[in-house]
Amino acid sequence: MTPLEIAGSMNMLGYGLATLGPAIGVGWIFASVINGTARQPEARGAMMSTAFIGFAVVEALAIIGIALAFVLQ
Amino acid sequence: MTPLEIAGSMNMLGYGLATLGPAIGVGWIFASVINGTARQPEARGAMMSTAFIGFAVVEALAIIGIALAFVLQ
Amino acid sequence: MTPLEIAGSMNMLGYGLATLGPAIGVGWIFASVINGTARQPEARGAMMSTAFIGFAVVEALAIIGIALAFVLQ
Amino acid sequence: MTPLEIAGSMNMLGYGLATLGPAIGVGWIFASVINGTARQPEARGAMMSTAFIGFAVVEALAIIGIALAFVLQ
Amino acid sequence: MTPLEIAGSMNMLGYGLATLGPAIGVGWIFASVINGTARQPEARGAMMSTAFIGFAVVEALAIIGIALAFVLQ
Repeated sequence: MTPLEIAGSMNMLGYGLATLGPAIGVGWIFASVINGTARQPEARGAMMSTAFIGFAVVEALAIIGIALAFVLQ
Repeated sequence: MTPLEIAGSMNMLGYGLATLGPAIGVGWIFASVINGTARQPEARGAMMSTAFIGFAVVEALAIIGIALAFVLQ
Repeated sequence: MTPLEIAGSMNMLGYGLATLGPAIGVGWIFASVINGTARQPEARGAMMSTAFIGFAVVEALAIIGIALAFVLQ
Repeated sequence: MTPLEIAGSMNMLGYGLATLGPAIGVGWIFASVINGTARQPEARGAMMSTAFIGFAVVEALAIIGIALAFVLQ
Repeated sequence: MTPLEIAGSMNMLGYGLATLGPAIGVGWIFASVINGTARQPEARGAMMSTAFIGFAVVEALAIIGIALAFVLQ
C-alpha cells in the first residue's frame, strides 16, 4: 500500500484562488446596479454601461488565470 | 501499519477554493434583489434581469473550475 | 513506534472549503428575506420566490463538491 | 505507482493570490461609481475619471504579478 | 517518473500576499473619493490630493514587495 497518495496539480489551487477575488468583485458590481435600480430606476442604463466596463476589467483577471494554469509548469 | 496515509487530489482543494468566491458573489446579487424588492416591489422585473446577467458571469467561474479539475493533471 | 500517523483524504479538506462560500451566500440570501419581511411584510411571497432561485444556484456549488469528492482521485 | 504525484507551479498560487486584492479593489471602485450614479447622475463624468485613475494603479499590481510569475524561478 | 514535480518560487507567493492588502486599501481610498464626489462635487480637488498621499504610502508596500522578491534568496 502506498503510504502517501496525493494526486493533482498546484495550478488548480492557483485557479481556485484566482476566481475568489473576481467573483466577489463582479458580484459586488452587479449588486450595486440592483441596489441603484431600486433607488433610481431611470438611471439603470448609465449604471449598466459602467457595470460592464467594471465587469470586463475584473473578470479578465480570472480569465488570465485560466490561461496561466496551462502555461506555467 | 503505514505511518502516513493521506489520499485524494489537490484538484478537490482547488475546486473548493473556486466555489468560495462565486457562492458569495451570487448570494450577494440575489440578496440585493431581495432587498430591492422590499424597498420598491414594482422594479423587481428589471432587478431580476440584471441579477441573471450577473449570476451567469459569476457562476461561470465555478463551472470552469469543475472542468479544470478534470483537465489539469 | 511510527513517528507520524495521519490518515484521511485531501478531498475532505476540499469539500470543507467548498461549503464555506455557499453557506455564507445562502445565509445571506435568507437573512435578506428576513430583513425585507421586517420592513415590508406584504412582499414576503415575492421575496421567498427570489430566495429559492438564489438558494438553488448557490447550494448547487456545494452539492457538486460532494460528487467531485468521490470522483476525483 | 508513484507515491506522491503533484504537478504544477508555486507561481500559479502566487498569481492567484495576486489577483485577489486587485479584483476586490477594482470591483469596489466601480461599485462606488454605480452607487454614486444612482445618487447624483450628473457627476458621473468626474467619478469615471477618478475611477480610471484608481483602476490603473490597482490593476497594475495584478499585471505585475503576471510578469513576476514568468520572471521568478 | 519524477515523484514530486513542483516548480516555482516561494517569493511569488510572498508577492501575491503582499498585493492583497495594498490593492484593497488603494481601492478603498479611491472608492471613498468617488463617494465623496457624489455627495459634494466641489470638494473633489481636496479629496484627490489626500487620495494621492494615501495611495503613495499604501502602494509603496506592494512595490517594496517586488523589490524584495528579487533580493531575498
